[in-house]
Amino acid sequence: MSANWKGAVNLNSVLASELESVALELADAARTSILPFFRQESLTVDNKAEASWDPVTEADRQAEKSMRAILSNRRPDDGILGEEFEPVPSASGLTWVLDPIDGTRGFLCGAPTWGVLIAVSSESGPIFGIVDQPYIGERFAGGFGKCWMEGPLGRRDLRARSGKCLEQATLATTYPAIGTEAECLAFRRLADRALLVRYGLDCYAYALLAAGQIDLIVEAGLKPFDVHAPIALVRAAGGIVTDWKGREAHGGGRLVAAATESLHALALAELGDV
Amino acid sequence: MSANWKGAVNLNSVLASELESVALELADAARTSILPFFRQESLTVDNKAEASWDPVTEADRQAEKSMRAILSNRRPDDGILGEEFEPVPSASGLTWVLDPIDGTRGFLCGAPTWGVLIAVSSESGPIFGIVDQPYIGERFAGGFGKCWMEGPLGRRDLRARSGKCLEQATLATTYPAIGTEAECLAFRRLADRALLVRYGLDCYAYALLAAGQIDLIVEAGLKPFDVHAPIALVRAAGGIVTDWKGREAHGGGRLVAAATESLHALALAELGDV
Repeated sequence: MSANWKGAVNLNSVLASELESVALELADAARTSILPFFRQESLTVDNKAEASWDPVTEADRQAEKSMRAILSNRRPDDGILGEEFEPVPSASGLTWVLDPIDGTRGFLCGAPTWGVLIAVSSESGPIFGIVDQPYIGERFAGGFGKCWMEGPLGRRDLRARSGKCLEQATLATTYPAIGTEAECLAFRRLADRALLVRYGLDCYAYALLAAGQIDLIVEAGLKPFDVHAPIALVRAAGGIVTDWKGREAHGGGRLVAAATESLHALALAELGDV
Repeated sequence: MSANWKGAVNLNSVLASELESVALELADAARTSILPFFRQESLTVDNKAEASWDPVTEADRQAEKSMRAILSNRRPDDGILGEEFEPVPSASGLTWVLDPIDGTRGFLCGAPTWGVLIAVSSESGPIFGIVDQPYIGERFAGGFGKCWMEGPLGRRDLRARSGKCLEQATLATTYPAIGTEAECLAFRRLADRALLVRYGLDCYAYALLAAGQIDLIVEAGLKPFDVHAPIALVRAAGGIVTDWKGREAHGGGRLVAAATESLHALALAELGDV
């Protein structure tokens, strides 16, 4: 698959329409799988990590299974990269990148800022992504020339906002400690210049950036399935996403998402030396 | 008004029912006032503080005005303590304590964890409280012998959970820095022992404690209108709320809310010397 595959998709609206339709079906299925577990006492939590606490629940597993079942039926030649089960290699050049519950810690404490992440990606990166919040009934989607949300107040197009300098900007990250000590120090330099810093939003932060509500997101230690859908969404809203050195970020690791090029440049200037 | 006024209310179900009905009417009015402003580009933000940034919006002011208009009609002898306008003295012994948007910073970045706080209080403290999240359409209420929520998944009774030791507990606070350096250090001692720490939830954390989802909340620098409704809600769910030394907390300042007596005691042991 060539790097200009995205251009080819624009010429093939039938395929784009099918991929979007499949993505929406996956999001519906994940909602149905997850909501019966949300805020239920009976939910059991397993630890995926040996030396730390990396929680996973039956809700994660059932949602990913239900999405994989749909894909094996509707897109059998596409690959799958999901958080909870083994990868499926791609025969089509397209891969579905799935995180059934991004923000499992938030999910486990009943907060409404976890989300289902669904992306379809070519070898050069994500081309369409959904961030879905089942409990609120909110869906944010971007790609194929559109960016939109549906939620309690209806449906509308999304656009990252412009016109905020760093001193007027809202910056989000999930964990105050970010990652390593050096990563944390670099983040603090940036955070000290912003108007407002918000913590604990997980994937919901990308939805808010696409919706023109926040200006910058800085994270570290991410996995590919954490970032594909957010990258597609933020880019479709006119935002910029790279790693801390300005390179492609869909491999995971460190990420900067910015509403504007100037905020992106300012963020890289503080973070790029780490 | 005597300290055993709460007992008197239990004997007077007509008054309790009227107060609950008025509180629900206030919450409905606040929703109607606030939602047209949420995530709107046109929202202007004013700064209430001279030396720092204490944001307030037209949404805060309109919501408090609409609630005060209802109170002046339905409960003209009750006092009002609201965040945005002058206090109204009480002739009845009852005071309504209102924060039209708790978590204005969260509101300003589009997060769904701000809330409308409505309490009715006697001189000895809050007796009924509502934490309302208009965007999700969630309402958490406690007092007069009941604790319940209504939301996207329907209505259910609430109860703080038990059986979690500190090492299994989820702890929430809004700002990682908490307050003074000494306050922050004491918080970190406690946080380092908990399983999970969540930030940025504002009043939504109390709703989650009442709903059996989190176990401990530690805050500092609070105002009375930040705490009256949460105290009523958490106590109605079986939880404990005091200041960091175990005293009444409805005057504001430092607060510990705990799902169980043993977690409360462990928290005071770490925080009580500050």
